[in-house]
Amino acid sequence: MPTFATEQLIKVTVRIFEAVGATDYEAKCVAEHLVESNLIGHDSHGIILIPDYYKVIKEGKIRPKTKIKIIHETNDSALVDGNWGFGQVAAKEAMEIAIKKAKTSAISAVGLFHVYHIGMLGYYSMMAAEQDLIGIVMCNSAPIMSPYGGFSRLLGTNPISVAIPAGKWKPFLMDFATSVVAAGKVRVALNRGEKIPYGWILDKEGRPTDNPADLYEGGVLLPFGGYKGYTLALLVDILSGALTGHGCSSSPEYETGNGTFMIVINPANFTPLEAFKKRVDELFQTIKSSPTAPGVNEIFIPGELEFRTKEKRLKEGIPVDEKTWQSIEIVAKELGLDINKIVKDVHD
Amino acid sequence: MPTFATEQLIKVTVRIFEAVGATDYEAKCVAEHLVESNLIGHDSHGIILIPDYYKVIKEGKIRPKTKIKIIHETNDSALVDGNWGFGQVAAKEAMEIAIKKAKTSAISAVGLFHVYHIGMLGYYSMMAAEQDLIGIVMCNSAPIMSPYGGFSRLLGTNPISVAIPAGKWKPFLMDFATSVVAAGKVRVALNRGEKIPYGWILDKEGRPTDNPADLYEGGVLLPFGGYKGYTLALLVDILSGALTGHGCSSSPEYETGNGTFMIVINPANFTPLEAFKKRVDELFQTIKSSPTAPGVNEIFIPGELEFRTKEKRLKEGIPVDEKTWQSIEIVAKELGLDINKIVKDVHD
Repeated sequence: MPTFATEQLIKVTVRIFEAVGATDYEAKCVAEHLVESNLIGHDSHGIILIPDYYKVIKEGKIRPKTKIKIIHETNDSALVDGNWGFGQVAAKEAMEIAIKKAKTSAISAVGLFHVYHIGMLGYYSMMAAEQDLIGIVMCNSAPIMSPYGGFSRLLGTNPISVAIPAGKWKPFLMDFATSVVAAGKVRVALNRGEKIPYGWILDKEGRPTDNPADLYEGGVLLPFGGYKGYTLALLVDILSGALTGHGCSSSPEYETGNGTFMIVINPANFTPLEAFKKRVDELFQTIKSSPTAPGVNEIFIPGELEFRTKEKRLKEGIPVDEKTWQSIEIVAKELGLDINKIVKDVHD
Repeated sequence: MPTFATEQLIKVTVRIFEAVGATDYEAKCVAEHLVESNLIGHDSHGIILIPDYYKVIKEGKIRPKTKIKIIHETNDSALVDGNWGFGQVAAKEAMEIAIKKAKTSAISAVGLFHVYHIGMLGYYSMMAAEQDLIGIVMCNSAPIMSPYGGFSRLLGTNPISVAIPAGKWKPFLMDFATSVVAAGKVRVALNRGEKIPYGWILDKEGRPTDNPADLYEGGVLLPFGGYKGYTLALLVDILSGALTGHGCSSSPEYETGNGTFMIVINPANFTPLEAFKKRVDELFQTIKSSPTAPGVNEIFIPGELEFRTKEKRLKEGIPVDEKTWQSIEIVAKELGLDINKIVKDVHD
C-alpha cells in the first residue's frame, strides 16, 4: 500500500477542493480535517470522502464559498446557520465560537443547523482540549438505525465525542457512534464477502442476521448496549436536531447532513487547572496499571490508540489503499489535476 | 404485599429522619425524594434505603442540620460543597442553583462535592424538565466496576440522567448506570438463589461467571456496551470526581458518596420553546407508531415506563414488601416511633 506524507495529502486535497470552487480557506480547512482523520487511523472519515464530497458539490448539496451566519448569540451561547457550506468549515467555526465563549464563562453551548457532513467529531472536541477546555460534540445524521425493539430506520448513528485535557497524559478522547458499529464496518464486511456478528443489524423483517447485505436491502443498524444506546441516540437527535432546528432524522424537516450541538466546559472555573489535570493523570495511571482480564494485553484510555496511530503515521507516512487513491485520481483528472505530480512537488 | 398512599410513606419517612436529628426541611426533602423513587418504580432508591441512611447517620457519615456552601460562583456556574449533609438535600439545592442560572443564560453548570448518596438522578434532571429546561446530571460512586479489559474495582456504576421537556408527551427521561446492571440486580438474584446472565460480572480472577455470589467475593461489574460504556463511566468519573474535587472513585481523595456534575440547558435560548416541544412530540409519535421487531409488543420512550408506574401507584398505592417494611419498623422502634400508627393517622 502506498504511503504519503501528511503535507502531500493535504496539498492534493486542497488543490482538488480549490478546483471545485472552494476558497483557499475552505479547501485548507477541509483538507486538514480529512488528513487528520487519516492520521489518527479513522480512515473512513479521511480522504476516502473526496469523491463523495466532489459528487455532492456538483449536485449543489454542498455550496462552496459560503459563510456561516450567527442567528442568535449570548455571552455563553450561539445558534449558527451553516448555510449548507462545507460541514468541516461550519463546525470548526462553531467550535471556535464555543471555545471563545467558554473562556470568558464557565460553560458555553453552540447549536449548528443546515450543515452537510461535518466529518470526525473528535476533531472539534480536541480543538477544545488543546486549549485546556472540555469539548463535547454530538450530531444527528441520516436515519439508518432502529429504536430498541423496532426495525425501522428512524435514527442516525448519532455519534458523541468528548475530549478532556490531561497533564502528562494525552487527552481523554471519546468519539463513537451510538450504533453497535458504524455503517462503514458493515460495508467493509460486504465488500470482503465476510459475515458479520449477530447483534449488529436486523434484516428488513426485523430478524437478526449475520449477512451484511441485509443492511442494504432495507435492514437497520442496532443501537449499542440495547436500550441504553437507543436512549443516547434519541438524546443526540433531540439536542442536535430539535434544539438546533436542523430537524430530527425521522422528520420531514430533516434534509441531509448533521445537525450539531456543542458544549464547552472551562475546568479552571471549577478547580485549579493543574489540580484537575493531576487528578486526570492519576486516574489514567491507575487504570493503565491495573490487572488485565484473561486474554487481554492492555487496557486503553479512550483516544490512546488513535494518538498512537498518529505518532506512527507522522513518522512512517499515511497508508492509502490503491482503490481509494484511484478514485481520487479520477476526480482530479476531471478537474485537470495530476495528483501524482502534486505529490511529487511537495516531496521535492 | 401491603400498599401505602404516597402521603403515608412521606409522613413515616419525615418522622424517622426528624427523630434522628434532621431539620423539618431536610426530612421532607429526603422523604419526598425516596417516595418519588418508589412512585416511579425505582424501589431500590426508595424507602428501602431508610435503614441504611439511619446507620450511616449514626456513624456520622451523613451529618443532619447541615448547610451547603457555595465555594465559587459565576453567572452560569457554581461549585458547591455539600459539607457531608444529606445527599438529597445538597443535590436538590445544587439543581435549584443550576436552574436559576440557566433561566438567565443559555446553559449552566454546577459541581457538587463532599456529598453522600444523592439517590435517583432522575429526580434532579426532572426538576429542570418541569421548568421547560433540559437537565443533565451525573455522579461517580464507590468503585465496583472494572475498566473494559480489566477486572479491578476502579470505577463506580457512574450513572447519567437527562430529562427533556416535551409538549403533549411526558418528558424524555434517561436515567441509567454505565454498568450493564446496577449492583442491586445482582443482589436480588443472589437473594433469590438465581443465576445471572453471563456478561454482567467477572469473578475475582477476571473470568466470566453466572454466579451472583462472585460479585461479593472480589468480583466486578462490567460496563454496558463494552468499550463504549467504559468510556462513558470514565467521563462521568472525570466530570463528577476530578472537576468537582470530590475525587475520582479510585483515588485516595475519594471518601464515599457521589461527586456530582450538573448541566442545565435553556432550550428557549436556541429555538422557540413551542417549536422545540412540537419537534420532540413528533419524534416520540414517530417512534411509538413504528413497527416492532418480532416478539416485541411496544417501543418505549425513555421514562415512559416510569411515568406509567407513577400514575398507577398514585391511584392504587405503593407496594412495599414485608421485609422492607419490617426493617423500617425496627429503625422506627429504636427511635420510639410506631410507624403503623403514623400511617393510620394519615389515613384517618
